[in-house]
Amino acid sequence: MTELGVVRRTVKRAERAAVDALAPFGVATVHEAMGRVGLMKPYMRPIYAGAQVSGTAVTVLMHPGDNWMMHVVAEQIEPGDIVVAAITAECTDGYFGDLLATSFKARGARALVIDAGVRDVKALTEMGFPVWSKCVSAKGTVKATPGSVNIPIVCAGALVNPGDAIIADDDGVVVVPADWAKKTADAAAAREANEGDKRAKLASGALGLDMYKMREPLKKAGLKYVD
Amino acid sequence: MTELGVVRRTVKRAERAAVDALAPFGVATVHEAMGRVGLMKPYMRPIYAGAQVSGTAVTVLMHPGDNWMMHVVAEQIEPGDIVVAAITAECTDGYFGDLLATSFKARGARALVIDAGVRDVKALTEMGFPVWSKCVSAKGTVKATPGSVNIPIVCAGALVNPGDAIIADDDGVVVVPADWAKKTADAAAAREANEGDKRAKLASGALGLDMYKMREPLKKAGLKYVD
Amino acid sequence: MTELGVVRRTVKRAERAAVDALAPFGVATVHEAMGRVGLMKPYMRPIYAGAQVSGTAVTVLMHPGDNWMMHVVAEQIEPGDIVVAAITAECTDGYFGDLLATSFKARGARALVIDAGVRDVKALTEMGFPVWSKCVSAKGTVKATPGSVNIPIVCAGALVNPGDAIIADDDGVVVVPADWAKKTADAAAAREANEGDKRAKLASGALGLDMYKMREPLKKAGLKYVD
Amino acid sequence: MTELGVVRRTVKRAERAAVDALAPFGVATVHEAMGRVGLMKPYMRPIYAGAQVSGTAVTVLMHPGDNWMMHVVAEQIEPGDIVVAAITAECTDGYFGDLLATSFKARGARALVIDAGVRDVKALTEMGFPVWSKCVSAKGTVKATPGSVNIPIVCAGALVNPGDAIIADDDGVVVVPADWAKKTADAAAAREANEGDKRAKLASGALGLDMYKMREPLKKAGLKYVD
Amino acid sequence: MTELGVVRRTVKRAERAAVDALAPFGVATVHEAMGRVGLMKPYMRPIYAGAQVSGTAVTVLMHPGDNWMMHVVAEQIEPGDIVVAAITAECTDGYFGDLLATSFKARGARALVIDAGVRDVKALTEMGFPVWSKCVSAKGTVKATPGSVNIPIVCAGALVNPGDAIIADDDGVVVVPADWAKKTADAAAAREANEGDKRAKLASGALGLDMYKMREPLKKAGLKYVD
Amino acid sequence: MTELGVVRRTVKRAERAAVDALAPFGVATVHEAMGRVGLMKPYMRPIYAGAQVSGTAVTVLMHPGDNWMMHVVAEQIEPGDIVVAAITAECTDGYFGDLLATSFKARGARALVIDAGVRDVKALTEMGFPVWSKCVSAKGTVKATPGSVNIPIVCAGALVNPGDAIIADDDGVVVVPADWAKKTADAAAAREANEGDKRAKLASGALGLDMYKMREPLKKAGLKYVD
Repeated sequence: MTELGVVRRTVKRAERAAVDALAPFGVATVHEAMGRVGLMKPYMRPIYAGAQVSGTAVTVLMHPGDNWMMHVVAEQIEPGDIVVAAITAECTDGYFGDLLATSFKARGARALVIDAGVRDVKALTEMGFPVWSKCVSAKGTVKATPGSVNIPIVCAGALVNPGDAIIADDDGVVVVPADWAKKTADAAAAREANEGDKRAKLASGALGLDMYKMREPLKKAGLKYVD
Repeated sequence: MTELGVVRRTVKRAERAAVDALAPFGVATVHEAMGRVGLMKPYMRPIYAGAQVSGTAVTVLMHPGDNWMMHVVAEQIEPGDIVVAAITAECTDGYFGDLLATSFKARGARALVIDAGVRDVKALTEMGFPVWSKCVSAKGTVKATPGSVNIPIVCAGALVNPGDAIIADDDGVVVVPADWAKKTADAAAAREANEGDKRAKLASGALGLDMYKMREPLKKAGLKYVD
Repeated sequence: MTELGVVRRTVKRAERAAVDALAPFGVATVHEAMGRVGLMKPYMRPIYAGAQVSGTAVTVLMHPGDNWMMHVVAEQIEPGDIVVAAITAECTDGYFGDLLATSFKARGARALVIDAGVRDVKALTEMGFPVWSKCVSAKGTVKATPGSVNIPIVCAGALVNPGDAIIADDDGVVVVPADWAKKTADAAAAREANEGDKRAKLASGALGLDMYKMREPLKKAGLKYVD
Repeated sequence: MTELGVVRRTVKRAERAAVDALAPFGVATVHEAMGRVGLMKPYMRPIYAGAQVSGTAVTVLMHPGDNWMMHVVAEQIEPGDIVVAAITAECTDGYFGDLLATSFKARGARALVIDAGVRDVKALTEMGFPVWSKCVSAKGTVKATPGSVNIPIVCAGALVNPGDAIIADDDGVVVVPADWAKKTADAAAAREANEGDKRAKLASGALGLDMYKMREPLKKAGLKYVD
Repeated sequence: MTELGVVRRTVKRAERAAVDALAPFGVATVHEAMGRVGLMKPYMRPIYAGAQVSGTAVTVLMHPGDNWMMHVVAEQIEPGDIVVAAITAECTDGYFGDLLATSFKARGARALVIDAGVRDVKALTEMGFPVWSKCVSAKGTVKATPGSVNIPIVCAGALVNPGDAIIADDDGVVVVPADWAKKTADAAAAREANEGDKRAKLASGALGLDMYKMREPLKKAGLKYVD
Repeated sequence: MTELGVVRRTVKRAERAAVDALAPFGVATVHEAMGRVGLMKPYMRPIYAGAQVSGTAVTVLMHPGDNWMMHVVAEQIEPGDIVVAAITAECTDGYFGDLLATSFKARGARALVIDAGVRDVKALTEMGFPVWSKCVSAKGTVKATPGSVNIPIVCAGALVNPGDAIIADDDGVVVVPADWAKKTADAAAAREANEGDKRAKLASGALGLDMYKMREPLKKAGLKYVD
């Protein structure tokens, strides 16, 4: 459970190959493949369009207006990680800017997901370090009170355990539990396999009504056509 | 009035030529030409910048978390239509993605306007299918309960009747009643006719205060200048 | 104090050189250099990415749904000014479009900062006139009731006195009191001077924990490491 | 359609007996009896708890920050009416206070439903004039620009035609089209008839699972029990 | 201007008699008497209904999640004061509970106005200490970083200088500059003087349209009556 | 992890005596006693003031607009439980009314905590069944798609495991992990033990500054007094 003032150094990360396999499917497909769970709330938006990444979660929990733990979590980053940050209460402050991004990147982090604000977004965009956040804010923070690193956190409505697989793109952010990564990647692949065929049929004017055989169930459910 | 479980196949669409004439004026001008009514709320935003379209409304009303009717409305699309979608309660789910967009486009739809979420926005952007929505969300939906197609709906605070003209651009979305389309296009043209002249004067440093003869009425209304 | 119906023609503007020196530092650095005060709320967003400006404030206070004073403030603009607009109550209407932008630009304004909506954002983007606003809205306004020009206003949570320095970029908007402009520019320069060195160290994998000597204070504050 | 500057004096009101019959069922039951449509958004809240009313709608559309039409609509009130007020854009101003309430009450109005703010709520509570509103605000308004009375409006997401039946209680506000009032009252009565029996069974510990025979359909839908 | 880390001990308070005279008029009347300015945003709500107070402002500015300065401001309270608290960024934490209320009350404070959260609202209600706040939240705070006391602050969109008169009731909170207190009380008295007469006329069925002679100006403004 | 379509019948509930001991302390004290974690977001509000309860969580996860699982969870309630309900996406629908409350109460439930809407609040208040919810809404739901019962859920930003202790009052809702219940109750008791003494001192005019010996640390942190 949530406890403040603790840094856990040992994280059982999701299998790298499975995590890496998830990014190309995108958030919507992974979320469907998992059974429509695991999504962060839609207020989490990328600071620039087009980034599509996956990685293993290192988590950090901080106090409102205090980004001290950002420096602590930096040390726990391993290549291929995504830092996932939550605050103990609603906060829009700018916890992260270009200096921290330089540090995170040097440690091998692929992205930051934070349920608060970020700043220096122009510089972050130029250096190609993607961030998904609640907002953009230049508001500075203090460094006064410890939080925790690598404990389970709730970020934007989703439970994140250290080591979970995180997938993020223009549609948002989804969390895949570490031991679901492989089967979710497989399910996503299966899901995508027959999408090309469907797309071709729909592009030629076929209707989902026929392709998915929906006419009968819609009629049974009471749908009526009138002129 | 709003009734669930009904698909109306016959729609009296606004005159095509008038509808097509409206897009180039843009939303702000059309809205002014109509007498400052008909706008959807400003939370409706395009998924990518720069699209500017007009079309005739086919409407669809759905339940929270259920996009079944998206497949039903696809069949009712005629070339030049814009699908306008409302939900019976507040919902941010992703009702629409690239497969449905492929289908809508194949049927001749010019855009989607939806008071809920959309997903696959990267793919939608690449295929050039414009969407105005409340948010972006990867959240999937079920297909369990029928709604209605081509009934009057309230979308983002605006009443939309099937067949109405819809104009959308970076400023938002405006609804023009079907039988107002021609006169609104004329009024918009008249409005724009003398804008070039005004723009030139203002660009040369002239003041609206003088150009619009506002000094006297402002004084009468009590405005005072002090040093 | 706030008074309606008054236009103050005399403004003691912040020193031009100091104001011009502030833009390159960006909002986050200026805000830190001032002691973490003076920021507008993070809902203030640029209508297009990449603009970074500073200027001296001319202020305008308007009624909800009434942009009459925009024409009055235009006359008070001097080259190098930024117009800062507040409304006496929450309002999302589109107070400003391409005609007013043409006028403001011709008078020498560098930008508009408005705690309400703007429209014609495509045209504003094309003409390169930057605006920071609460939202985008095509909603038109009336011209019926006078407000005030060049009085102290509260805009997006920040106090703005006429003549104050305004700095705005992708991170938001910050207000520097006129007589703080010089010392804030100096403090920002000092702050930035050693950032290059820090950035190089962090890029090579050094940790903030060591660079800022945080390990001891974190331990004192009770932080514990576990495996 | 929405047109500004017009007062319609003739309203075809829903049948009084049917309208009066609706109040005791309450909003939730009436909304279900209508087929789960017609509700205003849940941000509409009563200024005091416990009021439960029904009446016929007289509608008024106003500009942001301008309550001039409140005086115009007062003249159109007949005993048994409920005034339903919408604004052409989002506004939180206080359009209505104790003087207007005195006038409305004297004309026979039963309540006000307004998609904006009200003030003098202590006095309104003491005089027992119920109001459902978006917020409470002391913010005053001007009287400068005409709106319209007794045109169709969209209020808090619901279409309201003059003469429609309005029912409001602690759960919110529902709109019943004038010619649906009678059949909706009948449907609500039928719905309530067997509620007493259900309530007694549930109170004695019976489960809805059995009472509504849900076990089989839940199983078919895939629900699994585990220990 | 805003500066952190400073406690100003000397406050020039508004004249006590004028401040005390303001409470009975209520917020709406005082706000009108001042010329419709000075209101805090309508999200500021009382924790219990019915309180109506006025007092002189002692101000406090705090960091997000840090209520240390609440103890500092307590010492600066004089009998008849109202503490007005702002945070340097958006925060919903519970900065104030029953122990601090006991202290404030003992020092002579009449109320707290805070642009953040409060807790122990049941106890505060029982002890009759009124609070106007953004929200109720049990979230605790740290005591780590100094803010300021008795500097000008922006609270819920309104500028508050130490010593200003604060009036609060069920309609919200209004700020009267210290040297406007007397004339505002006089204006409010004048305003209220003829309200009784108006109320009686309206109660007997007279229309504001006639009482305020609005028919002619409405006609001039273009209002049309139709059947 | 979150999985849809599953009902877990076996729940390891927190020890009853410890759970019952927590209610009298109230949410703010319990939250402090736990180390300032475990709180739900402050938008969770009671439908009526004054209720103060504790109980063991039975959890339910539902789809937007679908309350079918409310009937499934009813069967899993044991006396002393509190039902905690989450939705897979943002939803304001009215999932719960007086019939379900009758059933829950008959099964021994002490309260409902739901991150969505409720209805029949007048009846719920009269029958004394307390509910903490995101909003009040009469909006009805369908019964079409299974969710889950007694799986870990995120409700209003807080992780809730089946069997956890839930404490709720006018300040909000806090979650205590099942195996923390006893020690949290003890810590809360210790915390409250010396509050009476503090309260008496503060009531007599003593300052927290002195009582908590804050003058020295404030000075060290840089606080300055000026006149």
